[in-house]
Amino acid sequence: MAVTLKDVALRAGVSRSAVSRTFTKGASVSPMTRQKVETAANELGYTPSALASALSTGRTKLIGLVSNNFHNPVFLEVFDLFTRGLQNRELRPLLVNLTDSNDPEASVRMLRQYSVDGVIVASSTLRPSFAKAFKNAGMPVVHSFGRRMAVADVHTVGIDNVDCGRMAARSLLARGYARVAFLGGPATATSTQDRQAGFLAELAQHPHIAVTSSFAAGYAFEAGRAEMQRLLAEGPPAEAYFCGDDVLSIGALSAVRDAGLLVPGDVGILGLNDMEMAGWANINLTTIHQPIQDIINASIELVVATMAQPDRDPEVRIFPCRIIERGTLRPAL
Amino acid sequence: MAVTLKDVALRAGVSRSAVSRTFTKGASVSPMTRQKVETAANELGYTPSALASALSTGRTKLIGLVSNNFHNPVFLEVFDLFTRGLQNRELRPLLVNLTDSNDPEASVRMLRQYSVDGVIVASSTLRPSFAKAFKNAGMPVVHSFGRRMAVADVHTVGIDNVDCGRMAARSLLARGYARVAFLGGPATATSTQDRQAGFLAELAQHPHIAVTSSFAAGYAFEAGRAEMQRLLAEGPPAEAYFCGDDVLSIGALSAVRDAGLLVPGDVGILGLNDMEMAGWANINLTTIHQPIQDIINASIELVVATMAQPDRDPEVRIFPCRIIERGTLRPAL
Repeated sequence: MAVTLKDVALRAGVSRSAVSRTFTKGASVSPMTRQKVETAANELGYTPSALASALSTGRTKLIGLVSNNFHNPVFLEVFDLFTRGLQNRELRPLLVNLTDSNDPEASVRMLRQYSVDGVIVASSTLRPSFAKAFKNAGMPVVHSFGRRMAVADVHTVGIDNVDCGRMAARSLLARGYARVAFLGGPATATSTQDRQAGFLAELAQHPHIAVTSSFAAGYAFEAGRAEMQRLLAEGPPAEAYFCGDDVLSIGALSAVRDAGLLVPGDVGILGLNDMEMAGWANINLTTIHQPIQDIINASIELVVATMAQPDRDPEVRIFPCRIIERGTLRPAL
Repeated sequence: MAVTLKDVALRAGVSRSAVSRTFTKGASVSPMTRQKVETAANELGYTPSALASALSTGRTKLIGLVSNNFHNPVFLEVFDLFTRGLQNRELRPLLVNLTDSNDPEASVRMLRQYSVDGVIVASSTLRPSFAKAFKNAGMPVVHSFGRRMAVADVHTVGIDNVDCGRMAARSLLARGYARVAFLGGPATATSTQDRQAGFLAELAQHPHIAVTSSFAAGYAFEAGRAEMQRLLAEGPPAEAYFCGDDVLSIGALSAVRDAGLLVPGDVGILGLNDMEMAGWANINLTTIHQPIQDIINASIELVVATMAQPDRDPEVRIFPCRIIERGTLRPAL
């Protein structure tokens, strides 16, 4: 069994609080008590732990990393960057899987029970009411990949998805596509709503361009494939599709190729994220790069700042995106 | 700021230990103290937390989930299943990223600092000395996807990789391939060593079959692609390759197709894992199914049992694999 603080207190003949203070930077403890505690700790092989420190400070250094999509390979990169970033600051990433959660209040209870010092919600599909509920429960919270708002309820770090939709439209126009389509993620996701809004707003200035929209059931391969199969069964495809994200694009690509159509000769596909797999030689997806590393760095910075100053005004940090040219759209004219 | 146990103790005029005992199932506390604590807790909006419970029990309910490969999409499934499985048992998955770690002792210090109740090492490439070091430091530890041993140092859950190598060889023989090859993961990974050993042992009984072996730098797309490109540059390919795992197979497939060769007409590819992506229509990889869900369930069960009974003898649990027929090997004769 691991040696606990209680064991050290018993051995040293001091209170548990005295043991805790001995191992807390800056806490007050008499030299004699410190001596007794350090001797007992050495004899028992006790390592001052985050738990002991949490005792005195009320801080666990646990950061809840909340996600709800384990079918999108981009999240492997997100987890990698978050865990390294938190570890580098001696914070501890607690992975919280809300795949099956519909009730913000149940999630609040879970995170309180977990005694997290802060929460990073990494999702554009989890309803904003989740991040709001965490904040209302008094937890420092940052919504990564959240929606750009003029006035935000909670700290939000991400991209301007409306701008990305405009960028996608301009890029398809520059390549001379005359019949284009938006193939979004779930219609309930703010990222999908905003990407569509920007795409349609930009194209509204070009009334000679034919535009259609549809939505996949999720940001996942099978969802993109199924929606593209449905579209192809309905009639002739658009010349180019702006897809909800990369994994959905890869699903759509597979449906297009299975139908005997060439990419980009017959149909063009534009993704969003620029996840590692988008650059794989067998995928080679033209896509809009989302600066994931910047978003994660800023999210960690903001949750740490809010732990130090809980009444900080909610802040919105937005990073610019850019198009990565690969093989699934024809070149600009 | 979150309300701490200390706040409740001050408000109730009792010791922190009394507050802690009030919220610990089965702990002794007088009715009057309990009354005072519960009143103070209600007034302050204090939720009894895992931290409060850890105070009395020395248990944090944190399980360190140790991984070192965030470039292999199979780990997204592993994280999904582990986090759900742990959450269902009211345990808390702490994700530990050892991608850049070479020193088992530094990792031990990190996990002690984290106050984990147990450790699950989910890796076939992390040196066995890591799991051993966690165990020696007194932590209940299970090595998932570890090596099958007659006598194990630490609890090990996984598959018999030697058997899988034999199964791969028999499957290629049954399909009439006469020149076959092993394209492994890193030569230092026990999974690669064992899969190769089984593959070669089975083929040794068929001396008329030509066999070669080589190794990719890692279980990753780029590693599989680069190694297959190197092999193709050297001379005519084998008729079929048993690849180290699925993501490596997908890299190898892309190199084969880029060289203008047909799969399975010119070259056959057999993977291992059966990760979600292997079944994507644009991949459609014939592969050996590793029962990831069973391995994860058994790993969680075993770490929980060892938390309750730390002197349990190390146990080895091995699950059977099977071939999933898809499109990258020709049919059996």
